[in-house]
Amino acid sequence: MAYYLDMREHIKALEAHGKLVTVTREINKDTELMPLVRWQFRGLPNEERKAFLFENVVDAKGKRYGIPVLVAALAASREVYAIGMMCEPDKIMHKWSEARRHPFEPKIINDGPVHEEVHVGKSLLEHGGLDEFPTPISTPGFDNAPYFSAACWVTKEPGTGRVNIGTYRAMIKSATRTGIQCHYPQHLRIHWEKCRKLGKPLPAAIVMGTSPNIGYVSVAKIPYEVSEYIIAGGIAGAPVELVKCKTVDIEVPATAEIVIEGEIPTDYMEPEGPFGEMPGYMGGKMMNLYFNVSCITHRKNPICNAWISQMPPSESTVLRGMVNEASLFHFLKHDLGIPGIKDAAFHNESGSTQLCVVSLKKVDTPQVWRALHGVLALTPGHSKMVIVVDDDIDPHDIDSVVWALAYRMQPDTDIKILPRVRGAELDPSAIPPEQEKSARDALMSTMLIDATRKWAYPPLSLPAREFMEGAKKIWEELGLPALKPKVPWFGYSLGYWSKEDAEEAELALKGEHYRTGEKLAKQRVKTDSV
Amino acid sequence: MAYYLDMREHIKALEAHGKLVTVTREINKDTELMPLVRWQFRGLPNEERKAFLFENVVDAKGKRYGIPVLVAALAASREVYAIGMMCEPDKIMHKWSEARRHPFEPKIINDGPVHEEVHVGKSLLEHGGLDEFPTPISTPGFDNAPYFSAACWVTKEPGTGRVNIGTYRAMIKSATRTGIQCHYPQHLRIHWEKCRKLGKPLPAAIVMGTSPNIGYVSVAKIPYEVSEYIIAGGIAGAPVELVKCKTVDIEVPATAEIVIEGEIPTDYMEPEGPFGEMPGYMGGKMMNLYFNVSCITHRKNPICNAWISQMPPSESTVLRGMVNEASLFHFLKHDLGIPGIKDAAFHNESGSTQLCVVSLKKVDTPQVWRALHGVLALTPGHSKMVIVVDDDIDPHDIDSVVWALAYRMQPDTDIKILPRVRGAELDPSAIPPEQEKSARDALMSTMLIDATRKWAYPPLSLPAREFMEGAKKIWEELGLPALKPKVPWFGYSLGYWSKEDAEEAELALKGEHYRTGEKLAKQRVKTDSV
Repeated sequence: MAYYLDMREHIKALEAHGKLVTVTREINKDTELMPLVRWQFRGLPNEERKAFLFENVVDAKGKRYGIPVLVAALAASREVYAIGMMCEPDKIMHKWSEARRHPFEPKIINDGPVHEEVHVGKSLLEHGGLDEFPTPISTPGFDNAPYFSAACWVTKEPGTGRVNIGTYRAMIKSATRTGIQCHYPQHLRIHWEKCRKLGKPLPAAIVMGTSPNIGYVSVAKIPYEVSEYIIAGGIAGAPVELVKCKTVDIEVPATAEIVIEGEIPTDYMEPEGPFGEMPGYMGGKMMNLYFNVSCITHRKNPICNAWISQMPPSESTVLRGMVNEASLFHFLKHDLGIPGIKDAAFHNESGSTQLCVVSLKKVDTPQVWRALHGVLALTPGHSKMVIVVDDDIDPHDIDSVVWALAYRMQPDTDIKILPRVRGAELDPSAIPPEQEKSARDALMSTMLIDATRKWAYPPLSLPAREFMEGAKKIWEELGLPALKPKVPWFGYSLGYWSKEDAEEAELALKGEHYRTGEKLAKQRVKTDSV
Repeated sequence: MAYYLDMREHIKALEAHGKLVTVTREINKDTELMPLVRWQFRGLPNEERKAFLFENVVDAKGKRYGIPVLVAALAASREVYAIGMMCEPDKIMHKWSEARRHPFEPKIINDGPVHEEVHVGKSLLEHGGLDEFPTPISTPGFDNAPYFSAACWVTKEPGTGRVNIGTYRAMIKSATRTGIQCHYPQHLRIHWEKCRKLGKPLPAAIVMGTSPNIGYVSVAKIPYEVSEYIIAGGIAGAPVELVKCKTVDIEVPATAEIVIEGEIPTDYMEPEGPFGEMPGYMGGKMMNLYFNVSCITHRKNPICNAWISQMPPSESTVLRGMVNEASLFHFLKHDLGIPGIKDAAFHNESGSTQLCVVSLKKVDTPQVWRALHGVLALTPGHSKMVIVVDDDIDPHDIDSVVWALAYRMQPDTDIKILPRVRGAELDPSAIPPEQEKSARDALMSTMLIDATRKWAYPPLSLPAREFMEGAKKIWEELGLPALKPKVPWFGYSLGYWSKEDAEEAELALKGEHYRTGEKLAKQRVKTDSV
């Protein structure tokens, strides 16, 4: 099957996989919508999370929107993300590598459904401007407005025309004005700085409601020189089809649900916030950029979409975690060529940023520390805690990681704590909030942990594979609850096991352990000599 | 209801609570029994784990035992443990405190069911000695014999008659001889050393299959001066009834299923092991004590019991974790009187020893560090990683702890790493196994972490309570899957939130956020000034 042409095909796929909850009852977009979806992140196991489609949305003033809202469709869970990538969950990392290796240039076409409705000039406000869309409040009780959470901002570098797509939150400030939180070194901000030096505003288009590949690349850390559109093409295995915007020199996906065109002034900035952020705390009011709308285009009967972020775990931590893992894996394995790299995990509960675990088939200690330093080299911030584990530990399973920390690591020799030299964006432990003037101020400290075995170990204290496999058959025959085996689930040698040990274990299995008992009796020693 | 009189009443209670799997098909005690129960620790969520009763047990040589085997009945999970304590799961800690505060002296009675059958002298071997019982191999493929895993050893201090009960593994070495792994400072070993100085063996009785309170106190760290029987009485709310052994001067529970009487020589020691141990690795062969059987007594139609330990999590990590938590909580809160102590957790995946998390309502930094050092003061070993968190973090939920580590802690200022000054029993990362001659050799390093907030934080980025509660009603009305809410599940203030912030959030809820937008527009500043 070819890749999803638009969000509507994606919604059908979610439904076909049993990963869509359609809510037909009336839902208040400001007080009920996000809290309802939030519950699945605070009260359900990962694998039960789904996308939500709200078909009957009203607001605080009783306004009825004819426009449905789709939430958590990109990344309610790893399984939901895999549907968007059109692959199995355990192939996501490889799909990302493939997409980077086989990109497709986008194709500009003359017209597309996103231009079925064009509101510009006088008609812009006649249709309500931004009021046309049921933008939910993400954190009711604390957020100071509805914000776009799933806005993919498209801009071009002045002069070169290099395209960037990035997701930045946007406070709805009036029917034709939003905020935008975007700080250096984010790429839109680099475009903005260049425009500022030229003394002109930065043209921009907000794209919402696309085939999922656009959302995935929008949150990815793609190198500045590379257009996200060509990587999105790599995910789809075909060029992304684009149309030219009506009022700005920018191209946008032809099948997007909604596009908002306009300009980001470079001469003035405006306060924005508070808004609930991904570390789990309210982000404070800051002097940010803002955006003046010149035109809105959308499909007939458009569908709004929103991402649910804030307190981890959230759609946002899955969304960013998956691509951070893929990028790190690619970097350590292919760019650095560290031998034995097996897997990489950013834990959702750490905002998919602060706890990073890499597994590898250990060659030696220097390669372990190359991996630890490699994590720090890839980005200027995040990864407060970096752990390297052996290849028999599942880096995604925190229980497995805790077990490795408990018995494969000694704090005095295997942990190094670094001073505050890395960026601490949105980390309230780095600097008291009243001292924070911009997201750039704070630096954080880092802890690196080598949790690999340092020498030969005795075998695991688990029954050997044949016995666990045999018992699994009996388990199933007895009709006991379905098992989801965690590694390790059988015992194996880790280098320290003598021929005599193996022979005694064999005797025991034959019921001949008294022979061992007799042997041991002959090895008695006087207590005084011990 | 009065407390369980014996293991048989306890089995009925497990069944009544839906926490017993009865297996009637033939099961090989050496190759199938423990692997089958193991699966629930490698493949099921905690709350689905149960006790297993095997009614049709055979061995490698095809021998049929008429004796059933009960496994994981004490501590398959926190819920199963609570059944044994006869309280709700969240009251276990308090039940332990109560038991210590209101102990009961045991009562010696003339006769009890444990003496329904007495095998002594010639009749001991006529009944097969230790062969009479279907003792399972815990880790088939690696263990060198069946071992008693649920043996509660009762001994007395020579001279004073002070009683100790402790659980120590015991290799079945012949029909009348077992090993026993017990090292200083374990209390039986202190009794043994005293006997050794007196030039005589240590009389002992192995008790198996009792009301659960005996098992619970047997693994608890009860002060040397205190008899475990009186604390067991505290759990039951009534004296434990004891009978005198037939061949040794020791009293044992009158309703036990099986008692094995004998002596531990003090002039010689004997190798024992390998045996799968609680950290998840095979424990190696060591020079250990051994035990000569003089008499076996048991009830008619006795039931054997075994605990499943080895790779964490296991019954053993729940069993030891629960009482370690109760002891630590009692010590920090009542003995040290640290203000605000709320909860304590030893994580199962760390063998219920290496990862310790304490939650408290923070007064100041010195009290946090008092708690951190308090954990180290209580025991000479374990607790490789100690973390103190605020009272809104669930110390039992590793996800909650990771979130606290991610955003409430800076490694350079909030972590202290101590040199190797604590005991590292069974930790293969402390010393290469070929250098380890006894469990006493190795020392380990420790990491202390203050993961509490150091100053006022912005509110959590979660909808305020009223919205989450309202959404929960809608969730349930929609018939979505049952929620198990994790803390925190709603947003609240953490000290940093201005009146203006609160007012803006109120306006947004009324759909009046454009008023905020207008206000912010007036606060624009020239870009050059930022």
